Amino acid sequence: IDPGAMAQAREHQDRLTKPRGSLGVLEDVAVRLAGIAGACPPPLPTPVALAVFAADHGVHAQGVSPWPQEVTAQMVANFTAGGAVANAFAAQVGASLTVVDVGVASDLPPAPGLLSRKVAYGTADLSEGPAMTGEQAAEALAAGVRVAADLVASGNRCLVTGDMGIANTTASAALISVFTGRDAAAVTGRGTGVDDAMYHHKIDVVQRALRVNGLEGAVPEGPEAAVRALAAVGGLEHAAIAGFVLGAAAARVPVILDGVIAGSAALAAAAIAPDAIGYCVAGHRSAEPGHAVALAHLGLRPLVDLELRLGEGTGGLLAHPIVTAAARVMHDVATFDSAGVADKDA
Amino acid sequence: IDPGAMAQAREHQDRLTKPRGSLGVLEDVAVRLAGIAGACPPPLPTPVALAVFAADHGVHAQGVSPWPQEVTAQMVANFTAGGAVANAFAAQVGASLTVVDVGVASDLPPAPGLLSRKVAYGTADLSEGPAMTGEQAAEALAAGVRVAADLVASGNRCLVTGDMGIANTTASAALISVFTGRDAAAVTGRGTGVDDAMYHHKIDVVQRALRVNGLEGAVPEGPEAAVRALAAVGGLEHAAIAGFVLGAAAARVPVILDGVIAGSAALAAAAIAPDAIGYCVAGHRSAEPGHAVALAHLGLRPLVDLELRLGEGTGGLLAHPIVTAAARVMHDVATFDSAGVADKDA
Repeated sequence: IDPGAMAQAREHQDRLTKPRGSLGVLEDVAVRLAGIAGACPPPLPTPVALAVFAADHGVHAQGVSPWPQEVTAQMVANFTAGGAVANAFAAQVGASLTVVDVGVASDLPPAPGLLSRKVAYGTADLSEGPAMTGEQAAEALAAGVRVAADLVASGNRCLVTGDMGIANTTASAALISVFTGRDAAAVTGRGTGVDDAMYHHKIDVVQRALRVNGLEGAVPEGPEAAVRALAAVGGLEHAAIAGFVLGAAAARVPVILDGVIAGSAALAAAAIAPDAIGYCVAGHRSAEPGHAVALAHLGLRPLVDLELRLGEGTGGLLAHPIVTAAARVMHDVATFDSAGVADKDA
Repeated sequence: IDPGAMAQAREHQDRLTKPRGSLGVLEDVAVRLAGIAGACPPPLPTPVALAVFAADHGVHAQGVSPWPQEVTAQMVANFTAGGAVANAFAAQVGASLTVVDVGVASDLPPAPGLLSRKVAYGTADLSEGPAMTGEQAAEALAAGVRVAADLVASGNRCLVTGDMGIANTTASAALISVFTGRDAAAVTGRGTGVDDAMYHHKIDVVQRALRVNGLEGAVPEGPEAAVRALAAVGGLEHAAIAGFVLGAAAARVPVILDGVIAGSAALAAAAIAPDAIGYCVAGHRSAEPGHAVALAHLGLRPLVDLELRLGEGTGGLLAHPIVTAAARVMHDVATFDSAGVADKDA
């Protein structure tokens, strides 16, 4: 993040024909974009690409979701056929959509827009031991880094995280509990819709995952401990999204985080490389309680807050026009001088 | 608002390939759009047109704003030259921008995109007596109705309110206090940036306006009392925006409300014709404390909440892609049946 470009962006904001500070959070977004690009005005964050990382979860066997595991693969087919909400929102904001299979439990037929980067046929059950081996976590991380690098190499100037994986809010809750030190009960939510009994069971499963994997107590510090924790209670899509964030940061391109899956993955990315969070924009805040905890820990303010709890990248996509508007102000808006408007602070 | 189309929209939402309710507030927006159009799926809210109603305020003489009154006319020139933030946001979301002079204190040179509907050269000082005569308020209301009707007649399927008028947050605070019965201190804010001394003076001015105009105590009921209150402490742009809302409702087209100026005008519109509020979408919540009070009174939930305090229609424009996305879901997204995705609730 370039402090010079950020300072220049703040100064430029103050010369534009609007009361100082009157664009609120959007002024911070524009300044952040300038810092990321190392340029003022920052380039518009287009073209934009959504990557939906899909994987399955061994913990599904514990009965933490009312949905059958097959829905992960069925939804991948829905994405590639253009029928999911993420497709509608991507069309709305002009984003491309790439689905990345990093760990779906079945073999998927090839389809346009589907990348096969399968590390395993789903994770092991995180409530009985590590969900992934260290090698698997590293491979998924690397896959995410590579997808980000490839999307930037092909011309994209903004990335959006997406996810698909039945039971993945359980892994997210475990990651958030581990990386923030908060109780499982405070960060576990109802995901795509569990009843009271299943909800309490889900909290128990998250608590057991931390105990079984020796992750109670100390928050992991440093890259090695972070990857170990990610492997122990994360999902393959969480590891890939963490890598995607690191890849965006390495390419100096902003990455809009979607919901609780991305938030938990970003905690892992932050523990691996704290500077990467400077490249993140929090697209939205989901209805999952753990998401607010993750965002607060990361120091990110969400742009959209409409009780979405769908995932797929939908909340991140909704934020893209807002991020673009923030950048566009820096290009299009006249200054007090150029427009001949009186400035109360001049 | 068509209850049949709304029920149909709710049912359709539940068949789409997403957990029921997982689009949160967007599902309510889609249902509302279906009710407004009397059709499911509702048409996409495009093309979209922003109308910026500009006027001056006699109360400016009381020193309630740090900006000179001339800035109203200067900003009108900035809009027609394409240099304001509203222009940048309109370009971002593909909206047309029309400026309507309903009461700027000086004669404005003709310009493309500028409609002259001048009712007066600004209002009288609301802290010394009525800001407008009843005729002036009615004329400004009618101008707003007519602008809405014309924009719909020329093919627009969504309207956005905008405003420009130095000192207009003072009139907004007075209107909100009158129509909600809340104290002036609770609904008066710092507008485009006033210091502590000017802020306390502004509250005094609002209190004086209510007292001088006999509006303390009872909240006006019925159309006649509403127009009288609007004339007493409103601005010409407030009256025009109230008319714009009524015109959108008459044309059965959704209108996205911008910030505190629109919120206070919508309170007047609601008092004149309560059903009109069903056609309103609250674009955003501004940093002005009175805006939250107005939205709560109207029962509207804002879509964007980013501490904007600029006006011009900027917050309304930012919400347009979100409203469109909500409608697009109803057109583009596959059902569980059509996509072959298992439905946990089937």
